[in-house]
Parts: sequence; C-alpha cells; structure tokens
Amino acid sequence: MHTLPAVTEPLTTKSRSEMIEITKLVQRHVQINRVTDGMVIVYVPHTTAAVTINENADPDVKHDLLRKLDALIPKAETYYQHGEGNSDSHLKTSMLGNSVTVLIERGKLILGTWQGIQFCEFDGPRTRSVLIKIVSFDRPTSD
Amino acid sequence: MHTLPAVTEPLTTKSRSEMIEITKLVQRHVQINRVTDGMVIVYVPHTTAAVTINENADPDVKHDLLRKLDALIPKAETYYQHGEGNSDSHLKTSMLGNSVTVLIERGKLILGTWQGIQFCEFDGPRTRSVLIKIVSFDRPTSD
Amino acid sequence: MHTLPAVTEPLTTKSRSEMIEITKLVQRHVQINRVTDGMVIVYVPHTTAAVTINENADPDVKHDLLRKLDALIPKAETYYQHGEGNSDSHLKTSMLGNSVTVLIERGKLILGTWQGIQFCEFDGPRTRSVLIKIVSFDRPTSD
Repeated sequence: MHTLPAVTEPLTTKSRSEMIEITKLVQRHVQINRVTDGMVIVYVPHTTAAVTINENADPDVKHDLLRKLDALIPKAETYYQHGEGNSDSHLKTSMLGNSVTVLIERGKLILGTWQGIQFCEFDGPRTRSVLIKIVSFDRPTSD
Repeated sequence: MHTLPAVTEPLTTKSRSEMIEITKLVQRHVQINRVTDGMVIVYVPHTTAAVTINENADPDVKHDLLRKLDALIPKAETYYQHGEGNSDSHLKTSMLGNSVTVLIERGKLILGTWQGIQFCEFDGPRTRSVLIKIVSFDRPTSD
Repeated sequence: MHTLPAVTEPLTTKSRSEMIEITKLVQRHVQINRVTDGMVIVYVPHTTAAVTINENADPDVKHDLLRKLDALIPKAETYYQHGEGNSDSHLKTSMLGNSVTVLIERGKLILGTWQGIQFCEFDGPRTRSVLIKIVSFDRPTSD
C-alpha cells in the first residue's frame, strides 16, 4: 500500500452556481498511475465550492438541484452580517460537503450507473482547483 | 495493511422516503473478516438514496428528519425540469451524502452511544444496494 | 503505512448552536506524531453535533451560517414526534455530516487558504468529544 502525491487540477467556472462533472478527470489519474485497487479522495480547497456525487446523465437534474438550493438559501437575508455577500455560498458548501471518497477496483472507479463526480461552484465565476489524492492498496511492484 | 474486496449488500425499501439502520450488517462484515484495526467505507451507488449516521434508538427521530426534509424539499416545484419527478430525491441525496467512513478498533465499529448507520431511501420503494469496503490496518498474519 | 490509535479530545460548548474551530487541535496531533504523509479522519461521535470545513477568518460567516440553518430548520414544528425537542439538531447534523477527511503532506494538513475544521454544536451547551484518527502513509522508521 502506498500513496501518490495529491495532484491539483484547475477548473474554470462560468456562473455563480454551476455543477461540472469531473469523473473523467479523476479516472484519468487512476489510469495514468495504473492503480488497480485503492481509493481516491477528491478534495475541494475552497469554502464556497463543494463536491458531490450525483446524476451524470440528464443535465436537468443539475438545473433543478441548483435552482432549489437557491430557493432554499437565497443570496440575501436581512440578518446576514458577512460583508462579501456570499454567506449563502458558504452554507451550500457545508451542506454538500467539500470532499468525496471513491473506491477503485480493477483499475476503475466504483460508481453506480448514474453516478458522476460533480464539482459544485456556489460563488462563481472563478478559477478554482480540486485536489485528487490516490491511495493505492496494490502491493508495490519491483519493475 | 490490506483491503478486502468491496461487498455489495442488497436492500429492499418500502416507502418513498425511509431510513433503514444497517449498523449490524456492517459490523457483521467486520467480524467475519476478523478485522481488529481499520476503517470501513459504506458507499451507496445510487443518486436518489444516501447514507448518514444518526439516532439508533427512538424511531421518532427518523420520522421527524424525513418529514422535515419533505417539507423543505417537496416532490414538486413549478421550475423543475427533470422529467422523472424525483429532483427532490437527488437534492436530499447530495445534502446527506452517499458515503460514510467509520473507524474500527478492537474489532468493533467506533460509534457514539446513539449513533447508527442509516441507509436513506428518497425515491422508493425500490431494490437498492450498498457497498461495504473494509480497509484493514492490521499486519498480515501467516496462518 | 500504519495508524495511530484514535484520540478523543473533549470540547465544551456554550450555546445551543455554535461553531468551534479545531484546526490547530488536529494539526497538533499530526505534529506530535511526526506524520509527514497521511490523512486524518475527524469524527464526531454524537447525533446532534457535526463537523464541517469552512471559513476560518471572518466570524460573521459562522453567524450567518448558523442563523440561516435555524431559519430553515427551526427548533419546533407541529409535526415533530421526538420528545426531546431536538429533532432540528439531528437534521442539521446529518446535513453537515459527522466526519471529515483531511490530507497530510509534508507534516501539514492540506487546507485551502480560508479553510478551517469547524466543530458544529447543534444542541448545546454540552460537553462533547471529537475523535482524531491519523492514518500515516510514511514508511516505518527503525529508530
């Protein structure tokens, strides 16, 4: 068992709220490093952007999810004290979470049929980054 | 340190929204495999079902939790675009999360007195599955 | 690769809802144990207290986050059945989650500029505890 250094991947977002699927990006690192058995931790180092695992097919799900989050947690509340006007973005981030753990077996991410890894921007547009850390459970080879 | 292959356990749900405690199911895999020190990742491979750690005693907590979630995020909103009528299920899933990590020490899950591992159905009734992946921190034995 | 036993740290909270930053507490355990490369799992063994990663600078963010959570999920609802009057605390806990995983590289927690590890009390004031489990990816040394 060993680990690979965490890799930072840049992301550019285009809207205030947006979900960007990064499944292939993560899978690519698993393949490049020829990890057969292990796990990957996808970690967002921001406080107004999150990562979640959800629908990879119909983009309407992303629309509905973001729209409903905005309805529940609008940008402004009379009692908000934080001066940057993004308190809603902070709460959405904590609700969805800033990291996910995905298992790797036979060189592939274990994901359900409809699951994709979704980076969630809640205070864009911005330049963001995501950390990909692979923990390999393979025995070290002597090649 | 080594890992065991992820095991898939089937679950049958009976309502649209439902919490099913799976603590004993997870603990059983820890015992069968005689893992003393390690961690278990409980992973739900669906996009409309989640897993969380919460109250294992009074069933009223589950009732209240699900009821309030339904009040906050009802099944229908005029702006929903997704055709399957389960956008609320997707959002609830991302809010609660699709995996939990529980530590194992002395052969047992480290859980607080009132904590149980709760599978959360948000678009049932359905046949579901949950993945149980054990990472053992024990030294390999030569028996 | 090896692990250290989970350490339990006590916390005392002063309000019903409160966020207490525990980043330095967690970092101290990483340093004491001289872990260079690894990960730490911060685990809350309660069902009405959570842990999240969010803003470490402006305390107004904490205020706004807790205030908005209270507005969304007030203490009382006519349909609550649980007799302890803390159903809201249980739901907030499941929404924010009861554990976070933080990576360690070069002896330090990998956190974004504005990120801090925040213990979240939702049913205080109380005496609480938090578990800190370090998994080291360092090779064992023979000193």
